[in-house]
Amino acid sequence: MKYISILGSTGSIGRQALDVIRNNQNYKVVGLSANNNIELLEEQAQEFKPNIIAVYNEEKAKILKHRLDGSDIEVVSGLEGLNRVATESSANIVLTSVVGMIGLIPTLKAIEHGKSIALANKETLVTAGKLVMNAAKDKGISIIPVDSEHSAIFQCLNTENEKEISKIILTASGGPFRGMNYDEIKDVTVKDALKHPNWSMGKKITIDSATMMNKGLEVIEAKWLFNIDIEKIDVVVHPQSIVHSMVEYVDGSIIAQLGITDMRIPIQYALTYPRRTSNNLEKLNLSRIGTLTFEKPNYKTFPCLALAYEAIKIGGTMPAVLNAANEVAVDMFLKEKIKFYDIPRIIEHTMEKHSIIKEATMDDILNSDKWARKIISKDFKG
Amino acid sequence: MKYISILGSTGSIGRQALDVIRNNQNYKVVGLSANNNIELLEEQAQEFKPNIIAVYNEEKAKILKHRLDGSDIEVVSGLEGLNRVATESSANIVLTSVVGMIGLIPTLKAIEHGKSIALANKETLVTAGKLVMNAAKDKGISIIPVDSEHSAIFQCLNTENEKEISKIILTASGGPFRGMNYDEIKDVTVKDALKHPNWSMGKKITIDSATMMNKGLEVIEAKWLFNIDIEKIDVVVHPQSIVHSMVEYVDGSIIAQLGITDMRIPIQYALTYPRRTSNNLEKLNLSRIGTLTFEKPNYKTFPCLALAYEAIKIGGTMPAVLNAANEVAVDMFLKEKIKFYDIPRIIEHTMEKHSIIKEATMDDILNSDKWARKIISKDFKG
Repeated sequence: MKYISILGSTGSIGRQALDVIRNNQNYKVVGLSANNNIELLEEQAQEFKPNIIAVYNEEKAKILKHRLDGSDIEVVSGLEGLNRVATESSANIVLTSVVGMIGLIPTLKAIEHGKSIALANKETLVTAGKLVMNAAKDKGISIIPVDSEHSAIFQCLNTENEKEISKIILTASGGPFRGMNYDEIKDVTVKDALKHPNWSMGKKITIDSATMMNKGLEVIEAKWLFNIDIEKIDVVVHPQSIVHSMVEYVDGSIIAQLGITDMRIPIQYALTYPRRTSNNLEKLNLSRIGTLTFEKPNYKTFPCLALAYEAIKIGGTMPAVLNAANEVAVDMFLKEKIKFYDIPRIIEHTMEKHSIIKEATMDDILNSDKWARKIISKDFKG
Repeated sequence: MKYISILGSTGSIGRQALDVIRNNQNYKVVGLSANNNIELLEEQAQEFKPNIIAVYNEEKAKILKHRLDGSDIEVVSGLEGLNRVATESSANIVLTSVVGMIGLIPTLKAIEHGKSIALANKETLVTAGKLVMNAAKDKGISIIPVDSEHSAIFQCLNTENEKEISKIILTASGGPFRGMNYDEIKDVTVKDALKHPNWSMGKKITIDSATMMNKGLEVIEAKWLFNIDIEKIDVVVHPQSIVHSMVEYVDGSIIAQLGITDMRIPIQYALTYPRRTSNNLEKLNLSRIGTLTFEKPNYKTFPCLALAYEAIKIGGTMPAVLNAANEVAVDMFLKEKIKFYDIPRIIEHTMEKHSIIKEATMDDILNSDKWARKIISKDFKG
């Protein structure tokens, strides 16, 4: 039996993870957390009977605490509450599927408490990859990626010897604006940008997919997760999203992972690793799909991807600034305050203004994140 | 340093293996063999300085022995000579790249002497898979596949637990007659059939590729090599031959191996396994290739593929009969004595006449092979 805490159980990944667990006898949920969706969290708590649940929003936490009065489930709140769920004593695995910087501290806490991490929070590695991977190494714990690209790479890496790896190739769907030029893209609406061709995901990540920042953030994550030079990480556009990513070895062999576009496959793998278990999901039928295509990404039409490569090459606090600036800019775009290409413009502006700290501590990273948000507020919202 | 004997060093695989070894400091050739191409064998012997070389043809062996008089290289002949090369005391690995049933006995001898096998001889597993795999198991030695499909599967199998494998998917180019119907194919010439779209191979195997018997034989090999039920082995037609084969796991993940169509990659992997070493071969560029397609095989237009499935389902001596009948029929086709669809007709006729022996010994297998050849000679050549 494996005992699992889920940070962000009411989000897309969290809900799908519970769906996987529902169909699997070997898992017991011991902790859950949500930002403010207490209706769903209460349902989940009633079904899975965890020991502890956290609601980030203090007011909502009070309401839920009242509702669950008399039950065995402890209700906690705020960042402290998230940390409690992340470090719940009976948990072996913590699935970190909260969105945003808020996931960073609880993930680190879980690592410090020796929990295995099923990682679905991008910001953890994008902003503090070096610190997090070092902490995991110190504790001897595994970080198993949940998102489909990194899960694919993780599954394709069957060597202990990193010298045998010549390249990691992340596939990108190319998003809804693939193949279009600057003039065709510059006036797109939020509605246009939210039409992802293959995956059903949250709004923030869907816009990231349209700008291809999503892939840029994944490149940064891959660098830390697989301890590989950024020069050895390539992106190839593959509109069908069937090949989820690949590893090229020095002998010229490429190992790829393929599957249907259902996040429950990589979520399940992260939970059952190193084993695989069967499920009732549809199987990939390549002869029915017929055609898989591949093309080079266009770094000019999608400058966010180039900015992400630039940020990680600079290193230090710069990826945290890239991430924060992107988060704010995407939010502004979703609120229709800026246009599509203002997203990379705001990020670039913020990166240019940033005085990087090379050997960054956790405080430096958190401060750079705050600094970036403040600068954008000052320079673009004022 | 690894010490290697090559059975069939003047053939396509043998020559490419020597090319791999030429670019690799860690290998020493200790034995070579050829059927009758003593000119090339002599050149190879002068370059690689093996301890022993075998020429199957007795007359040619005498000539070469005379030419190499006074050198340190021992020249032997016949099947006994092949066995000497296969069991050469200093060899750790034996690459069996002879074509035909003649490869079976030396491969078994090498296994009995505890040599690792890099297997490129199809007949070994097609005709005597059970005996050969049992012998390898008894001796605790590895059989590393050389041909591109089985090498791909071998590379994609990263589980020890066969229950986690749901399917092995062999890719097939479909050969020169892919997509054509019976009427379009029935009158094809030898020249038409020898035009393989992707791979440059020997004549026999190129015709096998045109009839898709090649894939049928590979299905049988895969069954033995990976100890998997025939029901779990699928064939998908993939004209570009970039995905060399795939493994589907019970969780719905498919792991695939991709690469350029150059046999030196799987040959090198078989020799360096479990390590990978770099080479100067061109790398696969998926965005340049652009499109990969997949389709179902047509068992009606390519009855040889269905016959192979039938033979292995029946088991016992039947695959040996299938193989022998195919060898003779392809030879007759190459000599323009029969038409294209006479190949499956002759095979089917021979299979129907065969009284199978279920628990077959090596003698049963060799006798069934001889029986099949005799029957065809009597029924079709008379």
